[in-house]
Amino acid sequence: MKKLINAPEDVITEALEGVAAAHPSLSVDVENKVITRAGGPTPGKVGLVSGGGAGHEPLHGGFVGYGMLDAACPGEVFTSPVPDQMLIATKAVNAGAGVLHVVKNYTGDVLNFQMAAELAQDEGIEVASVVTNDDVAVQDSLYTAGRRGVGATVFVEKIAGALAEEGADLSAVAAVAREVNERSRSFGVALSSCIVPAAGKPTFELGDSEVELGIGIHGEPGRTRADLSSARDLAAVALDAIRADMPVSGDLLVMVNGMGGTPLIELYLMFNEVNRYLEGHGGRIARSLVGNYITSLEMQGFSVTVCQLTDALTRLWDAPVDTPALRWGR
Amino acid sequence: MKKLINAPEDVITEALEGVAAAHPSLSVDVENKVITRAGGPTPGKVGLVSGGGAGHEPLHGGFVGYGMLDAACPGEVFTSPVPDQMLIATKAVNAGAGVLHVVKNYTGDVLNFQMAAELAQDEGIEVASVVTNDDVAVQDSLYTAGRRGVGATVFVEKIAGALAEEGADLSAVAAVAREVNERSRSFGVALSSCIVPAAGKPTFELGDSEVELGIGIHGEPGRTRADLSSARDLAAVALDAIRADMPVSGDLLVMVNGMGGTPLIELYLMFNEVNRYLEGHGGRIARSLVGNYITSLEMQGFSVTVCQLTDALTRLWDAPVDTPALRWGR
Repeated sequence: MKKLINAPEDVITEALEGVAAAHPSLSVDVENKVITRAGGPTPGKVGLVSGGGAGHEPLHGGFVGYGMLDAACPGEVFTSPVPDQMLIATKAVNAGAGVLHVVKNYTGDVLNFQMAAELAQDEGIEVASVVTNDDVAVQDSLYTAGRRGVGATVFVEKIAGALAEEGADLSAVAAVAREVNERSRSFGVALSSCIVPAAGKPTFELGDSEVELGIGIHGEPGRTRADLSSARDLAAVALDAIRADMPVSGDLLVMVNGMGGTPLIELYLMFNEVNRYLEGHGGRIARSLVGNYITSLEMQGFSVTVCQLTDALTRLWDAPVDTPALRWGR
Repeated sequence: MKKLINAPEDVITEALEGVAAAHPSLSVDVENKVITRAGGPTPGKVGLVSGGGAGHEPLHGGFVGYGMLDAACPGEVFTSPVPDQMLIATKAVNAGAGVLHVVKNYTGDVLNFQMAAELAQDEGIEVASVVTNDDVAVQDSLYTAGRRGVGATVFVEKIAGALAEEGADLSAVAAVAREVNERSRSFGVALSSCIVPAAGKPTFELGDSEVELGIGIHGEPGRTRADLSSARDLAAVALDAIRADMPVSGDLLVMVNGMGGTPLIELYLMFNEVNRYLEGHGGRIARSLVGNYITSLEMQGFSVTVCQLTDALTRLWDAPVDTPALRWGR
């Protein structure tokens, strides 16, 4: 295992110390593993909390800041955070208007956020939850009942975060978060495995010319293995799967996301193929992200997420954001 | 070779088409391989042009935009662009105040930019050049006479770009670019090789527990090979080499850069070690970047770049920037 670490058991703590040193705009509780905005909660604003296993950076800690999340709590690598962390985060961002939990659909995350929500409610904090489940690849998988929550989570955090910043109430913020999830679909492809530091060996093995179609963000199995084909063919596999589940015509928000180990030049090349495909099926990419936003450590591969925009969602997408990983308009 | 491409010979063209589709703020001349700001040159402003082999993305195309570059011209992967490209870029951004060429010290880049500068001067365009050479690892190398130009190039483009945006003249913009280069040092470490698409095989081989200390951004050899050690030890190797050449006390701008295939969580962990080391040697990280900014395709590893700040440089670093890869304050 070749990794830039000291000891596997210290990875998260030491990475959080690095986040704290790099970003004065964030407040990092290293002991409890909770990242919040440095300024404390914004009075009267709905608080947004997300979290999940580490190893998907910049998700979620890189999205804490103005116009997006108020707090993120990372677990160990690919391991759900515990309810206590989520409760600390929820209490830290509560400013009297309630708190939205943004939860990727993985069984551990869902159960723990549910428990945290109950604990917070016991303390008088109003909590709503939205569970993202945009991955069309598989119905059930190693870690998940139902569809997995992946790239749409980035869109949900950005758009619901923008609405919360405008002063909308908890039910409105939760509603737009659900709307974004319902209008979004994703599909991922792996060219290589990742290595969890504590395991020290690849999560799975792929042959020299094999790819895993429909991979999850922890390296859990996808739909099938296939021979590596062209970028054009891989874009078609991903978008055929998405299109079988949701129309892709009209104005779209599209993310071509790297899994962590794929060069940016290949992601732009893949974005070109995605654009070409969507144009051929009546879609128009009105907004986009190309880069590493929800990763699987050093896995090589990509995922594509498509969201059907409305004028209201486009306006919220364009609203100012100021986080380590997404920053514009402010 | 596992890559998200169609044919190796089409990688740059198709990636540029992707850049064009993703970034309406850019104008991409795919045929000539020149990326400029969509709005055309800013009247009276010094134009900034950079370029070099592709494969280091987001450098340089991702740094075209307000407050940074006016144009970038990528060559083929790890291959210098040709003088004609550089001339086209220079003419495209000339707004009467002259043009600064920002050139990484690689022999091909230096010769071709020199020729392009002469051709532009023949057409009446005033051109100044700054050659970055911040890599302390080796004196001469496979591609370079003297020290290689690496991470400081990002700092030069940001800070000189900010000064140009304020309306400074060509000699002042060139002077600050040289000052940033002179006040900056870098050192890189590779944990794995990269694969050039046209070659189809790793540029070099490393043993299961080996690292290359002092690697260049094309996988050219460094100072030595060593057994993989802890993040703390690797930070010390890199910073000892830098500190042997330049004091690291006082206010610093520090980049911990990923070579393309290293997870962000490891870069933050490495940033923590860099911060710890510098604090122990009288330095204070006043500004920082953590992420993939000057890469070597999918190489695993990191580089660290340290720049001694002054109040004037800090002010220019903080100035608004609006490019695909760096965006703040606007």
